Amino acid sequence: MRMLINVPETVVPDALRGMAAAHPELTVDVENRVVVRRDAPVTDKVGLVSGGGSGHEPLHGGFVGRGMLDAACAGEIFTSPVPDQMTRAAAAVDAGRGVLFIVKNYTGDVLNFDMAADLAQDEGIQVAKVLVDDDVAVTDSLYTAGRRGVGATLFVEKIAGAAAEEGAPLERVEALARQVVESSRSFGVALSACTTPAKGSPTFDLPDGELELGIGIHGEPGRERRPMMTSHEIADASVDAVLADLRPSGPVLALVNGMGATPLIELYGFNAEVQRVLAERGVPVARTLVGNYVTSLDMAGCSVTLCQADEELLRLWDAPVRTPGLRWGI
Amino acid sequence: MRMLINVPETVVPDALRGMAAAHPELTVDVENRVVVRRDAPVTDKVGLVSGGGSGHEPLHGGFVGRGMLDAACAGEIFTSPVPDQMTRAAAAVDAGRGVLFIVKNYTGDVLNFDMAADLAQDEGIQVAKVLVDDDVAVTDSLYTAGRRGVGATLFVEKIAGAAAEEGAPLERVEALARQVVESSRSFGVALSACTTPAKGSPTFDLPDGELELGIGIHGEPGRERRPMMTSHEIADASVDAVLADLRPSGPVLALVNGMGATPLIELYGFNAEVQRVLAERGVPVARTLVGNYVTSLDMAGCSVTLCQADEELLRLWDAPVRTPGLRWGI
Repeated sequence: MRMLINVPETVVPDALRGMAAAHPELTVDVENRVVVRRDAPVTDKVGLVSGGGSGHEPLHGGFVGRGMLDAACAGEIFTSPVPDQMTRAAAAVDAGRGVLFIVKNYTGDVLNFDMAADLAQDEGIQVAKVLVDDDVAVTDSLYTAGRRGVGATLFVEKIAGAAAEEGAPLERVEALARQVVESSRSFGVALSACTTPAKGSPTFDLPDGELELGIGIHGEPGRERRPMMTSHEIADASVDAVLADLRPSGPVLALVNGMGATPLIELYGFNAEVQRVLAERGVPVARTLVGNYVTSLDMAGCSVTLCQADEELLRLWDAPVRTPGLRWGI
Repeated sequence: MRMLINVPETVVPDALRGMAAAHPELTVDVENRVVVRRDAPVTDKVGLVSGGGSGHEPLHGGFVGRGMLDAACAGEIFTSPVPDQMTRAAAAVDAGRGVLFIVKNYTGDVLNFDMAADLAQDEGIQVAKVLVDDDVAVTDSLYTAGRRGVGATLFVEKIAGAAAEEGAPLERVEALARQVVESSRSFGVALSACTTPAKGSPTFDLPDGELELGIGIHGEPGRERRPMMTSHEIADASVDAVLADLRPSGPVLALVNGMGATPLIELYGFNAEVQRVLAERGVPVARTLVGNYVTSLDMAGCSVTLCQADEELLRLWDAPVRTPGLRWGI
């Protein structure tokens, strides 16, 4: 096991302590595993709360800050946080204009955010929820009924976050988040399995020289296993899988994402192929983000997320953001 | 071989095409492998040029932009760029106030940048050079006479870049770059070897359950091989190796860097341990940057770079920067 850790049991709190030390603009409640903007609750602003199992960093804690999330709840590795964390987060960020829960579609997350919404509403906090389910690879998976939520979560958090920062009311922030979900699709490919600290060995068996198309971010099975493909072929397969389900009539936002252990030089090379396919298919690209953003521990591989973006979504995408994982304009 | 590539021969130009597509604020000369700020040459500004072997991304191409480098030259994987690339870069960014070459201390890079400086000066461009040699692990290594240049390169490029952006003259930019070099030390640890595309297998043999202390960014041998250590122990060893050579009398900038394949959750956990050691040793930390910045392809591992920073260096560190790899304030 080649891990830079102390013991598996403390990986999540250790990382939260390290985040706190590096980012004084965040308040990190290590005991309860909640990361909050230091200036929360922000007067007259809708609060955005997300979270999920750890192991997908910078998602979600790395997207807390001005212009994006107000708070994120960190579960154990690949395990949903609990409702108590989410209600704490909601209480910490509610400024009286309500809170939006951004939930990736995994059964545990859905149940726990549902319960937390009920609890928060009992405490007088207005809560709306949006479910992210952008992964076209499979319907119904190891931890999911319906589609899994993956890369589009970044687009939802950024765009809804920008609207909230501008003072949009909860209904508007929620509607924009839904628009992003409906306009986004993803497809991922694993070149290696990931290893959870608790298990200490790969979560599934992927022989050298093979890859898995349509992988989930917890190593859930994909569509098919194939002999190793070139970057060119992987881009064709990934983009075409997305476009089979999303036929953009205008420009898209593109996220060319690494699964955690794929070097940036490979991701940029892959981006060249993704842009080639999109050009061949007649899809104009308005903005491209390349990097390891929605990850799966030390998995090697990549995913492509496209979001059809009208002018308003593009404007909100470009709006200033200041988080550990995504930052521009401030 | 689990690589997201087409063929080994095109890895570098493929990545440059992908960078060009993602970053319209850069001009990427794929044929000559030079990345330049689109607005270069910037009137009345000293030009900053760096570069080196590829495989260390985002270093250097990912640090081109406002407030940092004006241009970067990309060599083949782990191979110095050639003088022609450097003179092209110098000519592209020179606004008549001279150009600073920032050179990591590897024999090929040093020779080629020296030759390029002579050629550029023959063309009437005033050139100064600064050599980065911050790695305390070993003196004289596989590709180096003296100390290797690693993580401090990021500090040099950011701080000298900020000074140049403010209009400082070449002598001042060079002096600041030298101050950063003299004030910075690094130490790196490999948990796995890296695999170059051309070779297709690990560049050295590191059995599971062992690590190498003092590794270079091309897999050059370090100080010693040991059975796997905890994050706590690795932080002790790394920080103490740095502090044995740099005894800061004031606050430091800290770079807690991943070697490419180490997930962010592990790097943040490692940062908690680095901060603990620094606190125990009485070293105050002014700023911390955590992430995969000066990498070695798909190597798992980490490095620590400390830079003793006076108020002026801190101010220049905090100054706005807009590059693919490092961005804030704009």
